Amino acid sequence: MTTTDGAAAASDGHAESEAQRRIEERLIEEVVASFAGAGDARLREVLESLTRHLHGFIRDVRLTEDEWKRAIDFLTDTGHITDDKRQEFILLSDVLGASMQTIAVNNEAYRDATEATVFGPFFVEGAPLVGNGGDLAGDAPGQPCWVEGTVRDTDGAPVPGARIEVWEADEDGFYDVQYDDERVSGRGHLFTEPDGSFRFWCLTPTPYPIPHDGPVGRLLEAAGRSPVRAAHLHFMVTAANLRTLVTHIFVDGDPQLDIGDSVFGVKDSLVKHFDEQAADIPTPDGRDLGGRTWTKAHFDIVLAPTTGA
Amino acid sequence: MTTTDGAAAASDGHAESEAQRRIEERLIEEVVASFAGAGDARLREVLESLTRHLHGFIRDVRLTEDEWKRAIDFLTDTGHITDDKRQEFILLSDVLGASMQTIAVNNEAYRDATEATVFGPFFVEGAPLVGNGGDLAGDAPGQPCWVEGTVRDTDGAPVPGARIEVWEADEDGFYDVQYDDERVSGRGHLFTEPDGSFRFWCLTPTPYPIPHDGPVGRLLEAAGRSPVRAAHLHFMVTAANLRTLVTHIFVDGDPQLDIGDSVFGVKDSLVKHFDEQAADIPTPDGRDLGGRTWTKAHFDIVLAPTTGA
Repeated sequence: MTTTDGAAAASDGHAESEAQRRIEERLIEEVVASFAGAGDARLREVLESLTRHLHGFIRDVRLTEDEWKRAIDFLTDTGHITDDKRQEFILLSDVLGASMQTIAVNNEAYRDATEATVFGPFFVEGAPLVGNGGDLAGDAPGQPCWVEGTVRDTDGAPVPGARIEVWEADEDGFYDVQYDDERVSGRGHLFTEPDGSFRFWCLTPTPYPIPHDGPVGRLLEAAGRSPVRAAHLHFMVTAANLRTLVTHIFVDGDPQLDIGDSVFGVKDSLVKHFDEQAADIPTPDGRDLGGRTWTKAHFDIVLAPTTGA
Repeated sequence: MTTTDGAAAASDGHAESEAQRRIEERLIEEVVASFAGAGDARLREVLESLTRHLHGFIRDVRLTEDEWKRAIDFLTDTGHITDDKRQEFILLSDVLGASMQTIAVNNEAYRDATEATVFGPFFVEGAPLVGNGGDLAGDAPGQPCWVEGTVRDTDGAPVPGARIEVWEADEDGFYDVQYDDERVSGRGHLFTEPDGSFRFWCLTPTPYPIPHDGPVGRLLEAAGRSPVRAAHLHFMVTAANLRTLVTHIFVDGDPQLDIGDSVFGVKDSLVKHFDEQAADIPTPDGRDLGGRTWTKAHFDIVLAPTTGA
């Protein structure tokens, strides 16, 4: 890496004398060598790569001492706004795409397996069992949405009894856990039928901003970026001997898809058509929606084998 | 960088399909593109390089989701121990060599100019004027040390009236500001004579640990590293039209030089011989040390032109 970084620095037009380059590269090797005594070989590997990339960054941009001070202040502010309800470091990882890249390297592409995306901070263990055809919206406000599909493995065989967890924000952009009361809504789980099929009622997803009143929000503003997440519905699908899938489906036509999802969670394969239904169109299960419009989406899920990671 | 990182990942023996590599590289370009709207071109440059190196790190080590969580927890702990008296993020930057690399890229080698090193957190504005031949130890405990030398520019011309700030820890390893009382000791400033010469009494420097009861200390322990800084005396030298020099001198023979300075501040050119003097050797200025032994060090300083940066 050092040579590459040196070259990058030079190509950035920084006159870098050979003596200067030697000084910078010797320092990197000195820091890397300092980790040679780490008992854990993996820790050593991680710290060595972290050191090379951190120093490569400083050298590539010729970071000024003032910029270094501002970076220290930014991290300090990020640490001070973080508490048991607010995790600004995860937001920072999200908006730099680091969370999504971590998901990518841990869920490698495997044949036609459904792509994974970010987990997010709003999943809750023990969400209610709603069962196939049930409604997981609870009392959350929003437009009713019918979702159906089938879970298969990468050989096309249906996966019966797969556990499907679903969670989402209400039409005001808030998850139940973001309210001060004890409400449970916009989340639940069900299991696939013997033929691998599933179906449930939820709410048509709507876009909402990540918390942006802190250092990460200021970073996004300085970068001219939107804090808004593209409308999405969270899924976690687990089945024996298959790789657990954590993903979303997104809403075709959501303008935020063009503006850009603030955490880079969107994959083309995960954008689904949410078919608008007039109030007088009969629902798939005969449910009476009290004259409201509704939407219908189809999501077929393919799970990789656990060995496919 | 992405190609290089991909190659690095592959050479690490990670089977990385072309499809997988395309996914990871496309994500990086997507994040980089998200900063295109930054009003400040420099911010754009810094965020682009940060993104490429951060993603390069995640891909090179194939960071696991558990390791990512531990990194988030580490940064959270680092933020929570940081307050107006304790700056754990600076300590983290120091032990990763990032502070020293920043110094290096901002103080590029120039002919025979004296090398710079870390500033550290213990400098105080307005330290007392002790004048040439004065004693800046104050009441701080330790072995008396006589330091003398000359300040010149890179053409060899003496620099008269150069301001020399000196600060150091006492023999117990603490700077005056680390005590709860208002003491001022182990720091002061003086100006060079018309011939560029300077001389002062201080204390023979002794090794001391950086604060290591926090996350950074745990990192050093896991890496099998010492938190101790090699014994050193801080200098900041300022003169008109010359590059300000922030540096230390280190003590030849200090065992910590072999163990390793915890913040990588040591440069061979800055290791000086502190000559042990028996109690009965007359002092250079006839000062009576009350039968104590003392040391003598010589430090000639060369300042780069401001254009030499």
